[in-house]
Amino acid sequence: MSSSLGTLFRISTWGESHGPGVGVVVDGCPPRIPLTVEDIQHELDRRRPGQSKIVTPRKEDDKAEILSGVLDGLTLGTPIGLFVRNTDQRPSAYTEMQQAYRPSHADYTYDAKYGIRAVSGGGRSSARETIGRVAAGAIARKVLQHTLPAYECLAYVKSIKDIEAKVPDKLTFEHIESNIVRTCDGEAAERMIHLIETVRSEGNSVGGVVECQVRGVPPGLGEPVFDKLEADLAKAMLSLPATKGFEIGSGFSGTLMTGLEHNDEFYMDGSSVRTRTNRSGGIQGGISNGEDIVFRVAFKPTATVLREQKTITNDKQETTLSARGRHDACVLPRAVPMVEAMVHLVLADHFLRQRAQCG
Amino acid sequence: MSSSLGTLFRISTWGESHGPGVGVVVDGCPPRIPLTVEDIQHELDRRRPGQSKIVTPRKEDDKAEILSGVLDGLTLGTPIGLFVRNTDQRPSAYTEMQQAYRPSHADYTYDAKYGIRAVSGGGRSSARETIGRVAAGAIARKVLQHTLPAYECLAYVKSIKDIEAKVPDKLTFEHIESNIVRTCDGEAAERMIHLIETVRSEGNSVGGVVECQVRGVPPGLGEPVFDKLEADLAKAMLSLPATKGFEIGSGFSGTLMTGLEHNDEFYMDGSSVRTRTNRSGGIQGGISNGEDIVFRVAFKPTATVLREQKTITNDKQETTLSARGRHDACVLPRAVPMVEAMVHLVLADHFLRQRAQCG
Amino acid sequence: MSSSLGTLFRISTWGESHGPGVGVVVDGCPPRIPLTVEDIQHELDRRRPGQSKIVTPRKEDDKAEILSGVLDGLTLGTPIGLFVRNTDQRPSAYTEMQQAYRPSHADYTYDAKYGIRAVSGGGRSSARETIGRVAAGAIARKVLQHTLPAYECLAYVKSIKDIEAKVPDKLTFEHIESNIVRTCDGEAAERMIHLIETVRSEGNSVGGVVECQVRGVPPGLGEPVFDKLEADLAKAMLSLPATKGFEIGSGFSGTLMTGLEHNDEFYMDGSSVRTRTNRSGGIQGGISNGEDIVFRVAFKPTATVLREQKTITNDKQETTLSARGRHDACVLPRAVPMVEAMVHLVLADHFLRQRAQCG
Amino acid sequence: MSSSLGTLFRISTWGESHGPGVGVVVDGCPPRIPLTVEDIQHELDRRRPGQSKIVTPRKEDDKAEILSGVLDGLTLGTPIGLFVRNTDQRPSAYTEMQQAYRPSHADYTYDAKYGIRAVSGGGRSSARETIGRVAAGAIARKVLQHTLPAYECLAYVKSIKDIEAKVPDKLTFEHIESNIVRTCDGEAAERMIHLIETVRSEGNSVGGVVECQVRGVPPGLGEPVFDKLEADLAKAMLSLPATKGFEIGSGFSGTLMTGLEHNDEFYMDGSSVRTRTNRSGGIQGGISNGEDIVFRVAFKPTATVLREQKTITNDKQETTLSARGRHDACVLPRAVPMVEAMVHLVLADHFLRQRAQCG
Repeated sequence: MSSSLGTLFRISTWGESHGPGVGVVVDGCPPRIPLTVEDIQHELDRRRPGQSKIVTPRKEDDKAEILSGVLDGLTLGTPIGLFVRNTDQRPSAYTEMQQAYRPSHADYTYDAKYGIRAVSGGGRSSARETIGRVAAGAIARKVLQHTLPAYECLAYVKSIKDIEAKVPDKLTFEHIESNIVRTCDGEAAERMIHLIETVRSEGNSVGGVVECQVRGVPPGLGEPVFDKLEADLAKAMLSLPATKGFEIGSGFSGTLMTGLEHNDEFYMDGSSVRTRTNRSGGIQGGISNGEDIVFRVAFKPTATVLREQKTITNDKQETTLSARGRHDACVLPRAVPMVEAMVHLVLADHFLRQRAQCG
Repeated sequence: MSSSLGTLFRISTWGESHGPGVGVVVDGCPPRIPLTVEDIQHELDRRRPGQSKIVTPRKEDDKAEILSGVLDGLTLGTPIGLFVRNTDQRPSAYTEMQQAYRPSHADYTYDAKYGIRAVSGGGRSSARETIGRVAAGAIARKVLQHTLPAYECLAYVKSIKDIEAKVPDKLTFEHIESNIVRTCDGEAAERMIHLIETVRSEGNSVGGVVECQVRGVPPGLGEPVFDKLEADLAKAMLSLPATKGFEIGSGFSGTLMTGLEHNDEFYMDGSSVRTRTNRSGGIQGGISNGEDIVFRVAFKPTATVLREQKTITNDKQETTLSARGRHDACVLPRAVPMVEAMVHLVLADHFLRQRAQCG
Repeated sequence: MSSSLGTLFRISTWGESHGPGVGVVVDGCPPRIPLTVEDIQHELDRRRPGQSKIVTPRKEDDKAEILSGVLDGLTLGTPIGLFVRNTDQRPSAYTEMQQAYRPSHADYTYDAKYGIRAVSGGGRSSARETIGRVAAGAIARKVLQHTLPAYECLAYVKSIKDIEAKVPDKLTFEHIESNIVRTCDGEAAERMIHLIETVRSEGNSVGGVVECQVRGVPPGLGEPVFDKLEADLAKAMLSLPATKGFEIGSGFSGTLMTGLEHNDEFYMDGSSVRTRTNRSGGIQGGISNGEDIVFRVAFKPTATVLREQKTITNDKQETTLSARGRHDACVLPRAVPMVEAMVHLVLADHFLRQRAQCG
Repeated sequence: MSSSLGTLFRISTWGESHGPGVGVVVDGCPPRIPLTVEDIQHELDRRRPGQSKIVTPRKEDDKAEILSGVLDGLTLGTPIGLFVRNTDQRPSAYTEMQQAYRPSHADYTYDAKYGIRAVSGGGRSSARETIGRVAAGAIARKVLQHTLPAYECLAYVKSIKDIEAKVPDKLTFEHIESNIVRTCDGEAAERMIHLIETVRSEGNSVGGVVECQVRGVPPGLGEPVFDKLEADLAKAMLSLPATKGFEIGSGFSGTLMTGLEHNDEFYMDGSSVRTRTNRSGGIQGGISNGEDIVFRVAFKPTATVLREQKTITNDKQETTLSARGRHDACVLPRAVPMVEAMVHLVLADHFLRQRAQCG
């Protein structure tokens, strides 16, 4: 269904941007997993507006409330209901947009599909929908870490427009959180921040690429045909707002190599099966092989720009529109925890599926 | 589930490469759709080994048999069972591979997941599994064309290694089928054929990019959150063997643009809502906007190379392996109908979902 | 999944009895259906404790809050989030039960399954979980009535213990709501009320049978194999707390007839296809035939009795337990709206499925 | 979907009665389960026409062919394709029925739903569809027995019309298979056989009740809300052709008891938790409690009777119809293995779900 994801670890998000709030139901979470509201709030704070000078200054506290499924710090095995109340609603800033379709937004397509739309703040197409994902992802991470202590998922900004970060050999969470862009290269971070501030001052926007390394995934997760692990990751990433591409391992550049160059030779590392290279990106035939899972996601420049653009009204008259309001000139710093959340969700689901079928 | 795809137009494939055969069950097909076995065979013939000098010379007739769900040339609305018997089985050519894991294949990960594996011919991980997809895709296309007469899906080879095709403005099916590579540029086709023959003679392989244009999709197909149309397309493509990446519209290169450059301005073309550019790739907010859907898929170089490579045995000894047998030195000519089939399947499913919810 | 029901009109309930509240997410509701909070509250009030002298006197207001998916009295096509805050929580009354498993409750099986349990008030196994169903059912009814104006679902108490109601030929909603038992026979109602009051005064309980007539369902709803309409109704009814049986049309007594007696002969009623008898209960081969859908559901006597019973503790010691607290001595008056809600949900789902596949 | 059942152990049946054959795909079966074609054939033979003098004399060999998913007597973890070719097709016997709707069959409702129908032999509504269920059930039983060696499912005819069998205390498979009715009481068997032969000689038919005892199910299987174990059993049973009712444990007669009489008191049997009575039927709150699961299913008298009945044609003219052909005058002897198969399927699915969520 439209608003649900996962087969066994299954989430259903709900909520419009300017309604009472947004939330998520997590069904299928194993029982007796330690979980506190702080585990969830920590990730929501990384996603939250107003967290730094380069993201939207909207004041949204995004305080998570656990409504069910957890007792005395342990999951019950029953559905976990999570709720975040909407606070900063300024419909007045959006009045003009009620009639004109914002270019490269979902305004027109929602009207085409449903014949009705919650105009204010983008309604269901608002990035606030991702709050439920990030909250649920925090729970999925706890589930994975409970059984797979080496599990770790590190997403980071690989590039903003044409500024590319250098990835250190031993990347840590601290590298990424040491700068407000959430990149892994302090020098590039400076230039990225400068670029974002410049385009914002011009009412313009930029995009970039998020890369992700997932460690500690045992061999055997994933399914061989339609639900290949990379297929589910691709779907999860392309379901995030503003994404335009996904590649795993060698990706598009792998098409420039020959098979002999591209293949990952196996070797024994003590008693562990390893590959010398990792062009496969940690997945072969849809199933994890124990190497790091490495992929990249392309995010387009933010569609909301504070400059006049040509468009049409909902009664099909040509017009122009200059967006106002407080928007991200670059979504990537806040997209990093979203990418991680989607990884947690996909892997938790495949972890349970593997446990079901293969014991 | 692992071997099923779709919510309403739902397919389930089954079959190993060297067992009795492979097949698919299509559940949810609307009734009274005209369908003959030739509709299906035509697409299987485009996928079939031995169709030209640049694909594997294996002799596989791949004759489709309709076992249920169709009567007197019309679908019944009941499950359509399709069966293709395996014919060319030469287990002897594969003996050596039973013990050594082929690099960048699914041999090791299947063993890690299941603790058992149909070694011969790759078993379930064989590209023969895609027969069921291509057959089901032919049915999905009939469903779409029955209601949407302008519906057309054209996939073609955009590049092989570093040879890139020029895409003509008015691309037709005949352009693509006029050459055995299934590219859209006669001059590039010659060079691609030469390259494939050269690498094959060297026991090596190459990959490339398939691009796809989908026309005649009305606005409103797709779902706003997890089942975004581009997300389901990404999953469908990454579920095909040998794929490493997916991008839609501007894709990864769109990250190099600013928002002002990237946005697709709306205008009225008579009574039709159109966009001046199509960086969105025909989808906005997960929902089709009526423009052509345009995306690209990266296929890695074939993992099977006829040259000695280092690897390990299934009892974890290091060894070397030189594959033998008859393989594609480049999968892309045969991948083109697979990409199209997956598009048909995704769109038929979303077409039915839209009809269910929005009438 | 455990807490979700439906393929296209899909609901997910969440919430424990003594946590912050209970709720439901309705995904897949068509857009532009008129819906107000009063539509929902009306059904919740029929389900609510404290509504009459023969139901539990617990004070639960059960005020519904619509959190998403509705704007200005119309559905948006996006998930509808509904929330009912828990108010009357008296954990003290339940202390003793924390250690002793209540006979014929879910205490022991929850512990066996999850290894953890929200003891207070039954947690997830509380009848409060049905609040989400009744609320969602009210929405499903609006969806059905929007397209099928003759749609009407009338459930009523057919028997309490050995007191059986006489069903009038032209049964109306007013008949049923004219008495606090929700039966269709004023004379029997008096005797039923007296029986319930008597067993309650003795700390005992009784059960009975709810019958349901569904009118205005067009021919063609339902699926022919696993998702037969009667199969989905049976599942829906057996998923309600305290149910022990389901029968449709002639049911168990039909096994005493011969085929010639049992068959429903067809005839033409003007231009309508009708059957002379309705032993089929309105469904043939899993698909509605246009006659009234008629079925019965058995509800066991309430498991909570205020008398000493033998049982064991959660550390497996034999003990005795006398329940206290405020319980229903008979669940049937409050079960009537639950049965109706489940019918609405099943039919709305099949209505959308039929629209998807058969246009 | 219409032709699929199960979340994790998922089957999809296909096939019309007079097409090339019928079959099933089993997806999600664990790997390395011992399985031979004989395991399957054994159950198909119990379901097969022509097996005794009281069932239809149609000659259908119903030979199972395993097309995939099994190698050298072990499951691979991949989809298991099963195929049974149709052999005894006599369309001529059915000509008359092409125009007249058979009373209490699915002819009219299929036409109402799909606007098209495979008339011959009932097409998809034929009892041949259950071949796939019985075959898949045989696999599910192997899965259950592999981990739960005490697992045993015994279905038997409890009554035919008004002849009721006495159930012995220590019921065995041999009791049931010692007579061609598959009842558990030799004396009643004689009378049942006589009754079936009599009604058949009169062109009439009878129905009855199948009872089922399921042993060796550990506590903890089942889900607490919509997918309660009894709800999934009810759905599975009501999805079988000719069923009109389901009751578990005390069932409808439990409504005549008070709570004090009805409750199952817990006690310790050594280290095992047991209940003194089993009115719950082995399931409490949707979850198995370790007692035998006991339920009953009502089967109506066979709709096909060889006597003239009033009906209408598919162009809505009133007419009469006398069925010819070779039919079961009583479906119950052949229904027994179907009931068992559905139990295996439901329990295998819940077994895998429990393993997924609770480890």
